[in-house]
Amino acid sequence: MPSDPPLPAVAVFAGLGGQRVWSLMVSLFGDLAQGHGDAIDGPVLSTIMAALDVRPEASRVALHRLRNDGWLQSRKVGRISQHSLTAQGRAESVAASPRIYAAPPDLSEPWQMVMVEENGRDTDGALRNAGFIAAMPRAYVGRIDSAAPEGFLALPGNTPPDWLRRAVEPAELEADYSALLSALTALEDELPRADQLNALHVAVLRCLIVHNWRRLVLKHPALPGGLIRPEWPGYQCHLRVDRLLHRYPRPALQELAAASAAA
Amino acid sequence: MPSDPPLPAVAVFAGLGGQRVWSLMVSLFGDLAQGHGDAIDGPVLSTIMAALDVRPEASRVALHRLRNDGWLQSRKVGRISQHSLTAQGRAESVAASPRIYAAPPDLSEPWQMVMVEENGRDTDGALRNAGFIAAMPRAYVGRIDSAAPEGFLALPGNTPPDWLRRAVEPAELEADYSALLSALTALEDELPRADQLNALHVAVLRCLIVHNWRRLVLKHPALPGGLIRPEWPGYQCHLRVDRLLHRYPRPALQELAAASAAA
Repeated sequence: MPSDPPLPAVAVFAGLGGQRVWSLMVSLFGDLAQGHGDAIDGPVLSTIMAALDVRPEASRVALHRLRNDGWLQSRKVGRISQHSLTAQGRAESVAASPRIYAAPPDLSEPWQMVMVEENGRDTDGALRNAGFIAAMPRAYVGRIDSAAPEGFLALPGNTPPDWLRRAVEPAELEADYSALLSALTALEDELPRADQLNALHVAVLRCLIVHNWRRLVLKHPALPGGLIRPEWPGYQCHLRVDRLLHRYPRPALQELAAASAAA
Repeated sequence: MPSDPPLPAVAVFAGLGGQRVWSLMVSLFGDLAQGHGDAIDGPVLSTIMAALDVRPEASRVALHRLRNDGWLQSRKVGRISQHSLTAQGRAESVAASPRIYAAPPDLSEPWQMVMVEENGRDTDGALRNAGFIAAMPRAYVGRIDSAAPEGFLALPGNTPPDWLRRAVEPAELEADYSALLSALTALEDELPRADQLNALHVAVLRCLIVHNWRRLVLKHPALPGGLIRPEWPGYQCHLRVDRLLHRYPRPALQELAAASAAA
């Protein structure tokens, strides 16, 4: 693969910024090797990182950092190293996966508004921890099945006005979501069919998609579907991420090892 | 009647304040003579005002003022004057009557909460005119059948927390409602049965009840029943006002003239 022309995705996504090598590696292990006992062989990891346009020295530094942080562990098996998530790294990857890999929400999903007597840090924290989003002074929105604490007024929602839909969007991520949307839209048009890509190509592609999506989606609570503006870039990204990850399914680690050996 | 012992109601209600003579007279005409063509004979009016502990001179000044304001009109019929509401006075009495004489609300009456995009004077005014009550920043409550303007979020209510019930009560009238409640409760215990009172007594009694109730209830919008605290003094007053006005029905003007002639 090092002799292949670089995947268009690499250049497109490199323009989005936020591609710290250790963080890319977290995305890669989370996507490919989250299962108990999963490990990525050193040569496979090197090939993928090279395809991601990361220099070998930068990969070694990132691996070292993630081992020190207790996220990854490495062991020698014969002549090669095998790298895997630690129990902690796997637990954190597992915890983040439902948000990262969630299907796009149904836009008719019911929602509720929860009103509080007064704004206090405790109340605010409790509601945010329960997945609620501040929408107005003393009013939060959430999915209909999110339980509001006792003593709050919880009213089931109905067709929301446009201003409310916009009020719950994470405004600070608007530009980032728009840039990701452009990148994903370009990718969908340009990428070859899955059967024309080998397992390593797919691993690289998925890593870029998951990584750039994860950076944004984990920064804000999930919006209840019934409050989402269909044209909101965050939702449009979600549709494309979901389509792409289904179009290019996760390769098995054995396929990766075989593709790497053949390269 | 001037020789009768004064009705206990007069002293009890005098303690509530706000008994300006012209205003008492507005209540009296609104209660007794709101119909088209209704008029109160001068001697009947004098007898009632005396029973209300108003001096003749003060009654004459109030009559003069209400005529100047276009609220009342007087005409000579033979030896006596007849006083009646003008078209304007009747229209304003008719407009206020639904609130004054409304049956106490059903405490399970449905309500709604209306959320607005931003607080502006226009929005606030439009909602208040439509009978909504400001309950939280950018949130109003109203009866379920009050139509919210376009572009607002209107959510049907459910069992409200206690803090919301209290938030919609007119706090500035709390003491006045409590004082009226004490007066009405004392009255209910002390008053003789209706058939022991003549038409003039009943007219005086109703005037005091309607007047003191009207002074408070017209100062705030009607609370949706489903949001009312059962122990709220305003609601407890409403129950007693309604009971008393049914217990002592409005006397016909002919009965009053007859009772006055017999006195």
